[in-house]
Amino acid sequence: MLTLIDKLRKFKIIPVITIERAQDIVPLGEALVKNGLPVAEITFRTPAAADAIKLLKEAMPNKILIGAGTIINREQIRQAEAVGAEFIVSPGLNPDTVKACHELDIPIIPGINNPTQIEQAMQLGINCVKFFPAEPSGGLSMLKALLAPYPKLEILPTGGINLENIGHYLALPQVIACGGSWMVNNKLIKAKDWDTTGQLTRQVVKLVK
Amino acid sequence: MLTLIDKLRKFKIIPVITIERAQDIVPLGEALVKNGLPVAEITFRTPAAADAIKLLKEAMPNKILIGAGTIINREQIRQAEAVGAEFIVSPGLNPDTVKACHELDIPIIPGINNPTQIEQAMQLGINCVKFFPAEPSGGLSMLKALLAPYPKLEILPTGGINLENIGHYLALPQVIACGGSWMVNNKLIKAKDWDTTGQLTRQVVKLVK
Amino acid sequence: MLTLIDKLRKFKIIPVITIERAQDIVPLGEALVKNGLPVAEITFRTPAAADAIKLLKEAMPNKILIGAGTIINREQIRQAEAVGAEFIVSPGLNPDTVKACHELDIPIIPGINNPTQIEQAMQLGINCVKFFPAEPSGGLSMLKALLAPYPKLEILPTGGINLENIGHYLALPQVIACGGSWMVNNKLIKAKDWDTTGQLTRQVVKLVK
Repeated sequence: MLTLIDKLRKFKIIPVITIERAQDIVPLGEALVKNGLPVAEITFRTPAAADAIKLLKEAMPNKILIGAGTIINREQIRQAEAVGAEFIVSPGLNPDTVKACHELDIPIIPGINNPTQIEQAMQLGINCVKFFPAEPSGGLSMLKALLAPYPKLEILPTGGINLENIGHYLALPQVIACGGSWMVNNKLIKAKDWDTTGQLTRQVVKLVK
Repeated sequence: MLTLIDKLRKFKIIPVITIERAQDIVPLGEALVKNGLPVAEITFRTPAAADAIKLLKEAMPNKILIGAGTIINREQIRQAEAVGAEFIVSPGLNPDTVKACHELDIPIIPGINNPTQIEQAMQLGINCVKFFPAEPSGGLSMLKALLAPYPKLEILPTGGINLENIGHYLALPQVIACGGSWMVNNKLIKAKDWDTTGQLTRQVVKLVK
Repeated sequence: MLTLIDKLRKFKIIPVITIERAQDIVPLGEALVKNGLPVAEITFRTPAAADAIKLLKEAMPNKILIGAGTIINREQIRQAEAVGAEFIVSPGLNPDTVKACHELDIPIIPGINNPTQIEQAMQLGINCVKFFPAEPSGGLSMLKALLAPYPKLEILPTGGINLENIGHYLALPQVIACGGSWMVNNKLIKAKDWDTTGQLTRQVVKLVK
């Protein structure tokens, strides 16, 4: 059976979604699945997040891998897990949220952008981290410097990733996938423009294959 | 009654002062107050800091808001509080100095420049942090990425702020004010050039209003 | 007697070596010593590191100062100390490895790249840190901003240092030395090209004197 990391490695790109109206997630999720990208990180930046995860799970059972993003406390982890999120992503490394995920046996990918945080993550038993915010933190040159001392670390760059730079990130063997929002951005969601979401999804899926 | 954050939001710019001779603070403070900026962060980078805060408090009681900057241990907090500093600013996030400030009931604005530190600050009950050093840490693009996951955070960018970039920082609603030193730099203080300090203060006060 | 910091201040440049075949360290070390740079940081990025330190110590007793780099756990500290490493360098700041070094009374220079980590290092009794990765973290402008609040800190920039920028780093009084790899890079080691290593070493030794 594929592990979470195996699955993310196969997708190579994870759409990071911030949603205002929970019900929008269903056509959005369909646009992703139909165009070859059955994975979504739904961020807790809006109150609609938990409802959106629930709706998407019900609409497409077993057809899409769903994670909860921007998780910053235990209460959100409980909510995310209760509605069926299969993994947790956090912007920073918070030992308290890491422990909460370990207790619930749900995988967490916490954010780091320097060596000290990587070492702290490793001490907490974490081997896969998010490099966030990727581009403002120094981009590829920072990432290469961060990975060199920790050859077994697996990493998920997110923040400023786009069609132009995603190929450079994915060329590093330790990069399992990149988080990106351009195919699921707020404007497209507000306009319910699922066609454009679908086109942009096809485009990046083709590029990363 | 206005809170500390309300006051800083009103000033929009906080002069960050490093002073060698304590007595220079009085004419310097007068230049700030007369030109519309009754606030000063006096840094503990020099031994004259505590004396300077004391002198300024005595010279202009209730006319200027005074904070102590570059605070890195409990002893400095005790000194700063004893001479009447109304808030504490530190370059990094040190749980020990945060706790000491909470015990003394004096507000502290600790420095952060990544998501992990923001989450640690929040865990310590801190909601207003300093983004330091702002420009070398990635400037505006880093700041926007840092704020996105934490929409309730309030922030004070400091480090490399100048007349050219301050407007861009203040345009972000979560930015309460910026720290800056160009109107109170070492050269001006050494030359006792309070006229130039006054002119540069008027200029920035006009710009940020 | 010179302390470790005194010695590193004298060398000004520390070759950072990653070695695949332990026996290569002997001619490499000779090339460094013969050309005026009797110091080597051998990184635990490869399994050959401990053997290489042992071989070099035996081949040139008391002729070269040897440190162990990329140390990320207690077991590596024990290995490094057992084979005679005289100091430890780590990519990040890990309180656990710092304490292990203090227990064994072996100096450690942990990596930092922001103010919070500097304050944490100081709390752990550390006064000399590594600025890593130097260039991707913002280079000279970041380093100056980091040093300003901590005038007594001593620092060792490493990561992206080369012939062009090393002079600018060493011009800062708080910089004790820089780590660099260009005179001992993997290509030269694979090709056993000790002549080029010697030439590049002479060149940088001449430059920094």
